[in-house]
Amino acid sequence: MKIDSSFKFGIIGGGQLARMSALQAFRYGIQVGAVTSPSRNDPMEQVTPHVFRGQMSDYNTLEALANWADVITLENEFLDGELLQKVRSETGTPIYPTASSFKKIENKRIEKETFRAAGIPVTSFMVIQEPDDLKKAGADFGWPYILKSSKGGYDGYGNATVRNMEEAAKAFSKLGGTSGREIIAEERIAFTRELAVLVARNHLGTVVYPCVETIQEDHICKTVIAPARIPKALREQACELALAATEAIDGIGLFAFEFFLTADNEILLNESAPRPHNSGHYTIEACETSQFENHVRCVIGLPPKAVSMRKPFAVMVNLLGKRNAPAVLESSSDLRHLEDLHIHVYGKSESRIGRKMGHVTVLGRDVEECLTMAQKADSTILL
Amino acid sequence: MKIDSSFKFGIIGGGQLARMSALQAFRYGIQVGAVTSPSRNDPMEQVTPHVFRGQMSDYNTLEALANWADVITLENEFLDGELLQKVRSETGTPIYPTASSFKKIENKRIEKETFRAAGIPVTSFMVIQEPDDLKKAGADFGWPYILKSSKGGYDGYGNATVRNMEEAAKAFSKLGGTSGREIIAEERIAFTRELAVLVARNHLGTVVYPCVETIQEDHICKTVIAPARIPKALREQACELALAATEAIDGIGLFAFEFFLTADNEILLNESAPRPHNSGHYTIEACETSQFENHVRCVIGLPPKAVSMRKPFAVMVNLLGKRNAPAVLESSSDLRHLEDLHIHVYGKSESRIGRKMGHVTVLGRDVEECLTMAQKADSTILL
Repeated sequence: MKIDSSFKFGIIGGGQLARMSALQAFRYGIQVGAVTSPSRNDPMEQVTPHVFRGQMSDYNTLEALANWADVITLENEFLDGELLQKVRSETGTPIYPTASSFKKIENKRIEKETFRAAGIPVTSFMVIQEPDDLKKAGADFGWPYILKSSKGGYDGYGNATVRNMEEAAKAFSKLGGTSGREIIAEERIAFTRELAVLVARNHLGTVVYPCVETIQEDHICKTVIAPARIPKALREQACELALAATEAIDGIGLFAFEFFLTADNEILLNESAPRPHNSGHYTIEACETSQFENHVRCVIGLPPKAVSMRKPFAVMVNLLGKRNAPAVLESSSDLRHLEDLHIHVYGKSESRIGRKMGHVTVLGRDVEECLTMAQKADSTILL
Repeated sequence: MKIDSSFKFGIIGGGQLARMSALQAFRYGIQVGAVTSPSRNDPMEQVTPHVFRGQMSDYNTLEALANWADVITLENEFLDGELLQKVRSETGTPIYPTASSFKKIENKRIEKETFRAAGIPVTSFMVIQEPDDLKKAGADFGWPYILKSSKGGYDGYGNATVRNMEEAAKAFSKLGGTSGREIIAEERIAFTRELAVLVARNHLGTVVYPCVETIQEDHICKTVIAPARIPKALREQACELALAATEAIDGIGLFAFEFFLTADNEILLNESAPRPHNSGHYTIEACETSQFENHVRCVIGLPPKAVSMRKPFAVMVNLLGKRNAPAVLESSSDLRHLEDLHIHVYGKSESRIGRKMGHVTVLGRDVEECLTMAQKADSTILL
């Protein structure tokens, strides 16, 4: 691809991940367009004149973006692989990750089958086709276990932990199992840490980011600590699994892999995402090249760049909405005295309690100090 | 000012400086609008839907931006102080730097008078009102000396070095002196280095960036080395002068000061700019907080943040147009192997030989290595 100021980079999605990728794409002097929601409130709306409003499930909307763009990428996995394939073949516009890669992880069942076949340890699972399977899952995995919608879940939506048959039946119905959605049951892992690793890859090269630790609160990633506070050998093992997983789907672009570390120091792949990920926001300041910049580079055909960390530690804390009203950036706090603290606000027009409104990253030499500083910032930056 | 996602940040100007400030403003979740040229080709056009096309000298265009924005800032000094004052008083929208500060450095004569009155050493100068003054300048300063248009010069445009009366008379006429433009004569300083210092300041605080060394080629800043390769005491002296100069005009926003270092280790203020500056592009990666982020912070009323350098040295090289055709980013080079190299392309739709199309910054521990790497990148990144 010839990259000049007329080059057009298309993103299916208008949220904060698309926006942060766009802000990096602009550094390369290229144009960015996005499929955004009809609400006109998406974070992407404020950073480009090239928006294609519509549903991600609507072929015509995707086609309009594809006809405008020189290359297309994704912001999330709530897409249909067949639809992506059609957009690619009808418009001729390349899509990275490819529809072929996407289909290999299109839903949680296929994803697990793909990675298990590639020899990557995954959590045990089974498809729940009828209520009797719920009992079988309990017998196989023990109680409690997890029920998940194969497609469309995020931040705890689409998941349920069930402790007995009554809860299982209720959750199965609530998740849509009785109305035709594919539901899987998963063994509940007694993990000691949750880990994540990013990989950027294309035909010119591959880079693997440090293994980080993620801490969820109410099913939402709240804190990321880079690197993970576990032995180096385990971090390297997670990085190797992430690399193998990317190769297993012949991934081109930026991929995120979430793992469980068990008490026996076993590392199990939990979920993957074919796009920049919340666990990688820390890379904007902490790494030589951010996940967003390498996302753009891999998609437009530049070799991914080095990802070494600038300081020994980084802590990222998500700024979640504190009230159901516009989020106001606090200007009178003492944050000016905090060193190497970096603020990102996504420009969402409305805040809701628990909604991801922004994040802060703190870099430093002492991980506990970084954590304290990031938490202090979290309590004061966005009101 | 209450800063939320409805907050609107206005910039008079649509070039690369406006664009790089905008990309930082977006990190704060705010909206950005700009006065851009009627050509629709400005770098700002690609990064916001809020453009106000027109001339910077046109009151109605500035008024439209002011009525849209919560606060306004500048991208260059080719503005009229009275016009800024009028926009401020008619629309009520705050402008930072203020019209009052702006008027104190509005043209090169006033600027020198302001700083000289504040006790800051400036190059000797005199106003040329009639041809006889050209002779007087030669007698006072010796030949050659410099003739400058008081207003509107940049990158060598609006300047001339004259070696004798014949050249002086010709330059005086060419610069517009015979048709009413104010022309000043300046002593030509036999400097050993050119230095630059940035200051970010508002009512909540002031930060002074490291003293850097700038290297011009054909009157255009080509290379910046941070920090300057001169004794620390001299660097500190330049920083103190920059701080004093900012205070002398009660500057709110981001200011750049260019100095001459003479063979006698005297530091003379050469020029100032009430805005982000080419000499500060290195700060995007090299400093904890970039000039663009602190520009935004100071203008919207957040305290400026720390500016310490991430690595011992940084070298910035401007990517100047190599031909009169679209600039193409090179993808097949070996640049992937260069460490801590950062590319910025401004999205200008057309390239011209010598036009500022982008820049690269290299961070490292060895300044000569950084310089070599940046020059290598310069020769290959943008074709």
